Amino acid sequence: MGSFVFYWQIETRQILVFFRIEFNCLKDVDTVKNVTFVVMEFSSKLIEKAVNEMSQLPGIGKRTALRLVLHLLKQPKEQTGFLSQALLNMREDIKFCENCHNISDTKVCEICANSSRNHQTICVVEDIRDVMAIENTGQYKGIYHVLGGKISPIEGVGPSQLNISTLVEKVKSGKVVEIIFALSSTMEGDTTNFYIYKQIAEFQIIISTIARGISVGDELEYADEVTLGRSILHRVPFEKTFKNN
Amino acid sequence: MGSFVFYWQIETRQILVFFRIEFNCLKDVDTVKNVTFVVMEFSSKLIEKAVNEMSQLPGIGKRTALRLVLHLLKQPKEQTGFLSQALLNMREDIKFCENCHNISDTKVCEICANSSRNHQTICVVEDIRDVMAIENTGQYKGIYHVLGGKISPIEGVGPSQLNISTLVEKVKSGKVVEIIFALSSTMEGDTTNFYIYKQIAEFQIIISTIARGISVGDELEYADEVTLGRSILHRVPFEKTFKNN
Repeated sequence: MGSFVFYWQIETRQILVFFRIEFNCLKDVDTVKNVTFVVMEFSSKLIEKAVNEMSQLPGIGKRTALRLVLHLLKQPKEQTGFLSQALLNMREDIKFCENCHNISDTKVCEICANSSRNHQTICVVEDIRDVMAIENTGQYKGIYHVLGGKISPIEGVGPSQLNISTLVEKVKSGKVVEIIFALSSTMEGDTTNFYIYKQIAEFQIIISTIARGISVGDELEYADEVTLGRSILHRVPFEKTFKNN
Repeated sequence: MGSFVFYWQIETRQILVFFRIEFNCLKDVDTVKNVTFVVMEFSSKLIEKAVNEMSQLPGIGKRTALRLVLHLLKQPKEQTGFLSQALLNMREDIKFCENCHNISDTKVCEICANSSRNHQTICVVEDIRDVMAIENTGQYKGIYHVLGGKISPIEGVGPSQLNISTLVEKVKSGKVVEIIFALSSTMEGDTTNFYIYKQIAEFQIIISTIARGISVGDELEYADEVTLGRSILHRVPFEKTFKNN
């Protein structure tokens, strides 16, 4: 009479658990002989704590966290010091622009403080990454309004947690000519767009949204129907595509 | 006469650079009109510094680093504090076991201090991850010797940077009965094995290496020839596979 041993691994937020399952075999019916839980054991509490904290970050599991921590151990002590200090400074001293709520080192961010930009056009985005993406195109000369998220009942994010009221205030003040919605076209993005739209529709401003369509360089046959449909419905005059505007 | 604009993105260690290339078109020959470099610009120096430090970690690029940093910004300040402190404590206070060079909180690690383990059998491994992997099997009752790496001329790691001399000392002292090589079977691993072997071959001890073969549950047809060849050459008595040893 012998036994086979199988391992089954699950990872929870806090600990990595191996199930060690022993089966009896060479019998008529295989029976489970023994189930033991083998927790990922660290020989050092310091390592364990660092790995636990690291693995709180999105997309970083216990194993990746251990790899990162061991990498830091092999590097000079200064590198860990620089990393920790940079994170602490960032979290403590970061400011949000009073005007557009973008991340900034000063009270008013560089974009809002730039008088050569068009302050009558406001592009509504989710977070700083979208601002950076649009800035990198070099095609937009207006200013931004960073909502800080999207309305998402599933994640418990309601309109009151977003910077929506200040946007409505800006529109009410009469200084705004155009609002451009540049949220991602998901259920949450569309909900947020519509929520804001309902509050500013009564004012005499242009409300637009970024164009949806086939990406430059993409082949038509692989495009999804919704995108292709929209790009036909919202077709643009051909001359616009090569004339400098 | 119009122009097309293309973006081409490269990522170096320090900065993310976009090449913005403008082509003249609607001419007989397309000519490059303008090439500008668009560096990934952050609206905040604090964010930039944190992202730069984060992206020094292996497998973490600028974009992932930005995602992690923005995640920390959305979490309570304490989380960043805990993470920084855990990393700093780990880097400052970590000790290495005097005996086996494994990472430990005490002068001698738990495995070496455990008198119920067989101190005459030493398993030679690369780093703490291998120790954890072998410990999780629950099949090994000896002690370890952590080399801290493998001999790798390409990465500039020579024998003197590894904990090889202390291993040879242990063998010389006559208290060792068996040495088990458990390094990965790469060029570097084999070189390291052979380097150590040459220095301890003259002593009357058993020198073994972990078995290479088809993984439990794997299909033969997908196995590579070298592994399958080795598993046939080093076949084991069938009775050993189901008898409790």
